[in-house]
Amino acid sequence: MAFPTSVEIVDVCPRDGLQNEKGLVPVQVKIELINQLADAGLRVIEVGSFVSPKWVPQLADSREVLAGIHRHPGVRYPVLVPNLKGFDLAIAAGAREVSVFTTPSEQFSQKNTNCSVADSIRRLSEVVTVAKAANIRVRGYLSCVLGCPYEGEIAVEKVADLAKTIYEMGCDELSLGDTIGVGTPLKTKQMLEAVSAYVPIEKLAVHFHDTYGQALVNIYAALEMGVAIIDSSVAGIGGCPYAKGATGNVATEDVVYLLDGLGIKTGIDMKKLIATGRYIAKQLGHEPFSRVNRAYAD
Amino acid sequence: MAFPTSVEIVDVCPRDGLQNEKGLVPVQVKIELINQLADAGLRVIEVGSFVSPKWVPQLADSREVLAGIHRHPGVRYPVLVPNLKGFDLAIAAGAREVSVFTTPSEQFSQKNTNCSVADSIRRLSEVVTVAKAANIRVRGYLSCVLGCPYEGEIAVEKVADLAKTIYEMGCDELSLGDTIGVGTPLKTKQMLEAVSAYVPIEKLAVHFHDTYGQALVNIYAALEMGVAIIDSSVAGIGGCPYAKGATGNVATEDVVYLLDGLGIKTGIDMKKLIATGRYIAKQLGHEPFSRVNRAYAD
Repeated sequence: MAFPTSVEIVDVCPRDGLQNEKGLVPVQVKIELINQLADAGLRVIEVGSFVSPKWVPQLADSREVLAGIHRHPGVRYPVLVPNLKGFDLAIAAGAREVSVFTTPSEQFSQKNTNCSVADSIRRLSEVVTVAKAANIRVRGYLSCVLGCPYEGEIAVEKVADLAKTIYEMGCDELSLGDTIGVGTPLKTKQMLEAVSAYVPIEKLAVHFHDTYGQALVNIYAALEMGVAIIDSSVAGIGGCPYAKGATGNVATEDVVYLLDGLGIKTGIDMKKLIATGRYIAKQLGHEPFSRVNRAYAD
Repeated sequence: MAFPTSVEIVDVCPRDGLQNEKGLVPVQVKIELINQLADAGLRVIEVGSFVSPKWVPQLADSREVLAGIHRHPGVRYPVLVPNLKGFDLAIAAGAREVSVFTTPSEQFSQKNTNCSVADSIRRLSEVVTVAKAANIRVRGYLSCVLGCPYEGEIAVEKVADLAKTIYEMGCDELSLGDTIGVGTPLKTKQMLEAVSAYVPIEKLAVHFHDTYGQALVNIYAALEMGVAIIDSSVAGIGGCPYAKGATGNVATEDVVYLLDGLGIKTGIDMKKLIATGRYIAKQLGHEPFSRVNRAYAD
């Protein structure tokens, strides 16, 4: 139960965040957002997706985004890919790191990605095989690890089995997502304990949504388990369209405030981060959802 | 570091919550709110204040509130009193339990209550002496224990010294308030460690505001220290007018959701609590601030 001395924050705003906004964001705004995040000290930024634009029109310009950003040395810019076709498009567009996804919930898989869990694992496996051969880093997302809008409770053993499967396929890192934000710290710890029986804790990221206000306390529980990679979205942009209550990803500002208070290093400049959150929120026409951002004195 | 098996929630909405709302709430609405809270399983409800109506017009009807509520057996209904005059008025109005207040911050004391810390301790002492003689239970509030809007950082030793002083005067319970919501778990634990050197942990309550989104994670840290009394406000009503960012008291619904997930008993019926939060928010003309309340499916 020792906290990590430093944490890597993965800002998912340009992908997971903007994907769940109703409006379309101009490519220049996305590029500016990503450049500002890198300048604020973020070292991993998920910048886009090569899922069909038919399903996710918000990210149809991911090729232009990858072409337009200023690549800081030492910063990684992964993109989400659903299958081998998406992977090929991503690599052709200049991506050097990809994320793939699956879920332990059969119903969520069917309703969210229109395929069975078995099919999603097969697609994922194809991407991992090709990516590994090309020396491309792969992150695997598992969604609904603490509950599903259709199936309700998800057994931790089911999460652990799936994590084992995709880790053994060759994923470099797994991101465990509480997609609908229903988790609490005890369940979080039980799930992490089950998963870490098969996957080293340093290969695990946590990805919380704040729908029930529990994101930070779950992150704290994960830190107590030794997790040192945390997904978040600047200004708290994003959400899950399937969850009632419009709150979305935990805000990067709120996570960094917590980590600063715990003396855990992130390398992130709070002042620049606040400015970045205000920039993107203004572009989207609303206030930042981050409580730290709203309360922060200039 | 063992969690308590049960927690007593002190709902401060009718006092701390409504005190910080701009509009005046009709006495019948307050009475209905308090009766609903008791019916939902709350066993301590702070129902009003006998501070001068010149300073807090929102609570000028506390006498009518005390007269109008249905007193459930086993439920306590404390009221806030600033001095002996307020105490006498409270008792005459039928109060059987009172709360008094002070702060380790000299500047906050001056600006918030127009007197020095030494004067506030003197006033408090007078109330405690008379209350003890009359066998009236007294709760002591300490505000700004994790930071002050004027003085910034507050040393934990200063908090501990003040807690020792007012506990030794005869306060039955101390509520440690992060009035401006700036605390994080490490500071929370350090403060509780310092205070519990003088005051038994079972006599300590924590009172967090969610201005920086840290309330629940701080409560979790306090639970890890063994604290088993938590202040909160249904629907997250209230706030501190001195803190930038309009967020206020941590919401009772969010605290109960956390505790339910940890298997810690509260005796509170979530469904009734949700309905109560929606009732008071509707009366105030806005949505509940509680994330659990907003996300809760009917």
